[in-house]
Amino acid sequence: MSDNTVYRASTTAPVNIAVIKYWGKRDAALNLPTNSSLSVTLSQKSLKTHTTASCSASYTGADSLLLNDEPEDIQSNKRTQACLQLLKRFRHDIEVKNPSAPKLSTMPLKLVSINNFPTAAGLASSAAGFAALVRAIANLYELPHTPTQLSLVARQGSGSACRSLMGGYVAWRAGTARDGSDSIAEEIAPVSHWPNLKALILVVSADKKGVASTAGMQTTVETSTLFKTRAESIVPQRMEEMEAAIHAKDFAKFAEITMRDSNSFHATCLDSWPPIHYLNDVSRAAMNAVETCNRKAGKLIAAYTFDAGPNAVIYYEEENEKLVAGVFRYVLQQVKGWEGEYGAQIPSNEQGGLEAKTVMTLKAGVSRVICTGVGDGPERVEEHLVDDRGKPVRI
Amino acid sequence: MSDNTVYRASTTAPVNIAVIKYWGKRDAALNLPTNSSLSVTLSQKSLKTHTTASCSASYTGADSLLLNDEPEDIQSNKRTQACLQLLKRFRHDIEVKNPSAPKLSTMPLKLVSINNFPTAAGLASSAAGFAALVRAIANLYELPHTPTQLSLVARQGSGSACRSLMGGYVAWRAGTARDGSDSIAEEIAPVSHWPNLKALILVVSADKKGVASTAGMQTTVETSTLFKTRAESIVPQRMEEMEAAIHAKDFAKFAEITMRDSNSFHATCLDSWPPIHYLNDVSRAAMNAVETCNRKAGKLIAAYTFDAGPNAVIYYEEENEKLVAGVFRYVLQQVKGWEGEYGAQIPSNEQGGLEAKTVMTLKAGVSRVICTGVGDGPERVEEHLVDDRGKPVRI
Repeated sequence: MSDNTVYRASTTAPVNIAVIKYWGKRDAALNLPTNSSLSVTLSQKSLKTHTTASCSASYTGADSLLLNDEPEDIQSNKRTQACLQLLKRFRHDIEVKNPSAPKLSTMPLKLVSINNFPTAAGLASSAAGFAALVRAIANLYELPHTPTQLSLVARQGSGSACRSLMGGYVAWRAGTARDGSDSIAEEIAPVSHWPNLKALILVVSADKKGVASTAGMQTTVETSTLFKTRAESIVPQRMEEMEAAIHAKDFAKFAEITMRDSNSFHATCLDSWPPIHYLNDVSRAAMNAVETCNRKAGKLIAAYTFDAGPNAVIYYEEENEKLVAGVFRYVLQQVKGWEGEYGAQIPSNEQGGLEAKTVMTLKAGVSRVICTGVGDGPERVEEHLVDDRGKPVRI
Repeated sequence: MSDNTVYRASTTAPVNIAVIKYWGKRDAALNLPTNSSLSVTLSQKSLKTHTTASCSASYTGADSLLLNDEPEDIQSNKRTQACLQLLKRFRHDIEVKNPSAPKLSTMPLKLVSINNFPTAAGLASSAAGFAALVRAIANLYELPHTPTQLSLVARQGSGSACRSLMGGYVAWRAGTARDGSDSIAEEIAPVSHWPNLKALILVVSADKKGVASTAGMQTTVETSTLFKTRAESIVPQRMEEMEAAIHAKDFAKFAEITMRDSNSFHATCLDSWPPIHYLNDVSRAAMNAVETCNRKAGKLIAAYTFDAGPNAVIYYEEENEKLVAGVFRYVLQQVKGWEGEYGAQIPSNEQGGLEAKTVMTLKAGVSRVICTGVGDGPERVEEHLVDDRGKPVRI
């Protein structure tokens, strides 16, 4: 091969939404969490990051990243650097063992990444972003590492990214080692185990960006007097119960733990000093609507959860689509997002029985919906965002 | 004296607003709390209950209570009965020791009570109500009991009523005795110790009545996984710190503990199952406005606290009236409540620097204000709400 060879590998990676929340680092540099967490990987048919990693001896200058057509400063980004250095070291080990392997670890990297997320949806894209970056480079370098082994790398980019390297139902074990060597993600059940779990995301227009999660979680760790109880005794028990619920496909149990853990997380935010508010009256209207769906059904058929923002993610099983998503479709028929594979099949249900105030608040405050469901982990793709001469390509 | 003698005694009693919250009973029948609490007694120039207790051998029928011109069913009210029985027993002891004392304990009671609270203010009137009832009957019966001794009685009517029997700064010690004999209130500092503490109450129009506090607190005790930590370890430490802050008249410390304890209480509500919401976006706008006042001042000069509802109570020292209450007066000049001894002196301050969104939310959501300050305990008055023939009188 000539010196001009451009090596390329591409992947897509999914978003994940935790049902047991990650909030709080015990080691900020290594992104080691105070507690384990558990998430559902969401389908890439709805939300994904597409990333191409390429390298070539002909590339000049430093490693670079083009994200949504904008150059990112990755040189001064410690988290990105940590990921790149680890992956290069793994590649270097291969090159040392096999001297005929091309010296990719010495070549500059050219990374190109695109999110298909709705603009301004306020959805955390860092998990999918770092998962795609790590997966794409691992593909490029032909690393033999398993997704769980790679989760150690992605975690250092963005904590929750480690959970986006796998599909289905994924646990991130907090671990106890000081070097973080046991703080890893693992798939506890694949999509095929419980494929009919769906998710409806209500995108809530926030007046302004709330406290960023990295800063917010450290405020909580340092000041909330209730946080220690959550991290040390509540979450460990919930992790066990949630894993059992998922293995048993026990939606009612899954729903209760999901909602209670979201509330517990937001309670520790309110207990922080100064207090942190992510939920607003629209979020509470979404909670109220879910409670109404459950009351009408006489059992838990819907579960809300909220990350560091007002957006609601509502999980339900496909057989209850009309009783859950259908109610929101009726109320929110004017907003975008009902099209597509997941949304098109949702029937409008005018029998939701929501209170007038709840309907009014949702109509006024939800700017769009995203219809999705449990999905697979990163997928290797052959659509490269860099051509064979190293130029970025628009798809 | 003839058989027709009507014995009368009257009192007024104040509202109190806790700065360390009472939330949770360890014994529902005796109204024994899971944790100690601490409150500021508010001036009766602004809010009070006026109660006349009367009895006469000429009265027929059972004990009765006329509250705001409406007959109350006190026969089936266990809490009221508990108070009346205890007070009659105390009177009976006196009559046994002193056979010449009139046998008031055997006569039917006629109780008449009026609250001067703004209609629909959503202010808990039960504390002032039970304190006035107990104090009026104790006056009628000429009981030698101290306010602290009477607090044992009032507590059984409504937990927080025990704190309305004293003025200034009042602690309710949770106690440990199973019979509640050490669960009493005591004045930790009189008004004169720190007389310049003021309070501005923002009455927020709630769409509907939230979860009643009696039911809500038991839901929290039974389901919140964070509540035990609050009750057992956080509040006891805060009680000590708050008492020290009050003794030192250290407003910044008083403010921080007040706000953090309010947030901690509402955090355990959110952590309850099902979750309980008392704060809404208007409450959060009030919190935000207080944070802005404090940031502008470069120190804590204002403190918010919220009971089981969206109304904000904002404490500040008189010397900072313009910087705190003045900012709200400017924003809320169109609402009622700025008149009167406490309100009239508050200057409008257009330099508050509140965010536009905060101003808009407050304007839309605050229906009136109440201007008040720390005040004295119950006051014996000679204006009786029953005439000397036993007929209710309108004042």
